[in-house]
Order: sequence, then structure tokens, then C-alpha cells
Amino acid sequence: MSDLKEHSCEACSPNVPKATEEEKQQLHKSVPDWEILNIDGEEQLYKVYKLKNFVKALEFTNKIGDLAEAENHHPVIVLEYGKVAVSWWSHEIGGLHKNDFILAARTDAAFNDMQ
Amino acid sequence: MSDLKEHSCEACSPNVPKATEEEKQQLHKSVPDWEILNIDGEEQLYKVYKLKNFVKALEFTNKIGDLAEAENHHPVIVLEYGKVAVSWWSHEIGGLHKNDFILAARTDAAFNDMQ
Repeated sequence: MSDLKEHSCEACSPNVPKATEEEKQQLHKSVPDWEILNIDGEEQLYKVYKLKNFVKALEFTNKIGDLAEAENHHPVIVLEYGKVAVSWWSHEIGGLHKNDFILAARTDAAFNDMQ
Repeated sequence: MSDLKEHSCEACSPNVPKATEEEKQQLHKSVPDWEILNIDGEEQLYKVYKLKNFVKALEFTNKIGDLAEAENHHPVIVLEYGKVAVSWWSHEIGGLHKNDFILAARTDAAFNDMQ
């Protein structure tokens, strides 16, 4: 698969189908460190990042905010001292869309840029 | 009680005692919208703020970050679209210190400044 973070996000609406099992398996290969959690019946991509301190964690949170705003697709971020946990999923469809995997890949790239 | 947000934070260490029940009751009067939760045996101050969108929620998160850094005392912040949930407690002592109530009051003030 080409570099997932370079893929374009599609507009998401309640009528767009979720990613199929096969698609998810394929997409997950590009972001293998992300767990697929089932939260209240909705699948989510979840990853915890370690950072040096609170300032670095907040800086990373802002970078995630930038890429979320760019696609008008927003994660849940748990920010604390030295740690940022990120969850991506598509609320509109109650689960995972390719967009979530793309944004997970971009989140990894943003983190790597800080190292 | 004088305006709690103007009080000075004290350096916290594992040897500093937690706030007593009486102190907590008194301090809680200044930040009555904050719930006192018991999470795994540790009391925490918890409050959820509603904001207009993700950008505003992130802006508020940064303001909380500023006041956390100023005291070198850091909360857990759950940031999502239109919503910020904040938890203050003193990890070092496994519960609540007056500092947490002061920072809760300052968090309220930071929120009010944005309105």
C-alpha cells in the first residue's frame, strides 16, 4: 500500500459505509501500533504516546489538533504529564472509516516529526 | 474565603498532608461545580466544560496548560469536539491538596475569560 498518510480523506456522512473487515485488516498494516478497541459497540483506533513532559505532550496535542481541523474530523485526546492517548473513529457511522486510519498515520507522522 | 484563584500554591511533596475533610468542605464552596470523584482510592476534582467546537476546546486546553505549567502541577485533560473534561489531584500524596482547589478555581477563571 502506498504511504497511508498521503491518502486523501473522503467526506464522511451517516450514509457512508464503514470499512469492511478486509479493508480494516489491510489498513491496519500501515498503522500496526494502533489498537482497534470496541467501545460501547463502536470500533476505535487507540494509541498512547509517551512524551518528555507536559509541554511536549501539549505541543503534540496541538499538532494533532491541526491535522484534525484540516480534515474536520476530530479525535478524543487524553492529555497528561508526559503522555497523550488518542482515539480516532467516525462518530457519524459508529465505527471505523478509512479516514480514521489515514489520520492515525498522520498522527504517527506528527509524533515522529517531534523526535 | 477570599478569592481562591488568587491564593498561592504550595510546593507539594509526598510528605505534605492531604487536605482534611473540613478543609475540603470549605475549599469546595469556592468551586462547587467541581465533582469530587474517588478514582482507585484517590480523590480528584473533576469538571466537564462545553465549548463551541474543537478549536475552542483546544484553545481552552492550552490555557489550562499555561496555568498548569505556571505551578508545575498538571491535570489530566480529555479533549474532544466541543468538550473539555479536567481532573485535578495531587499524585504525590494520592489525593487532594489545597493546590488542586486553587487550580480548579483558576481553570474556571480561564474558562470565564473565554466567554
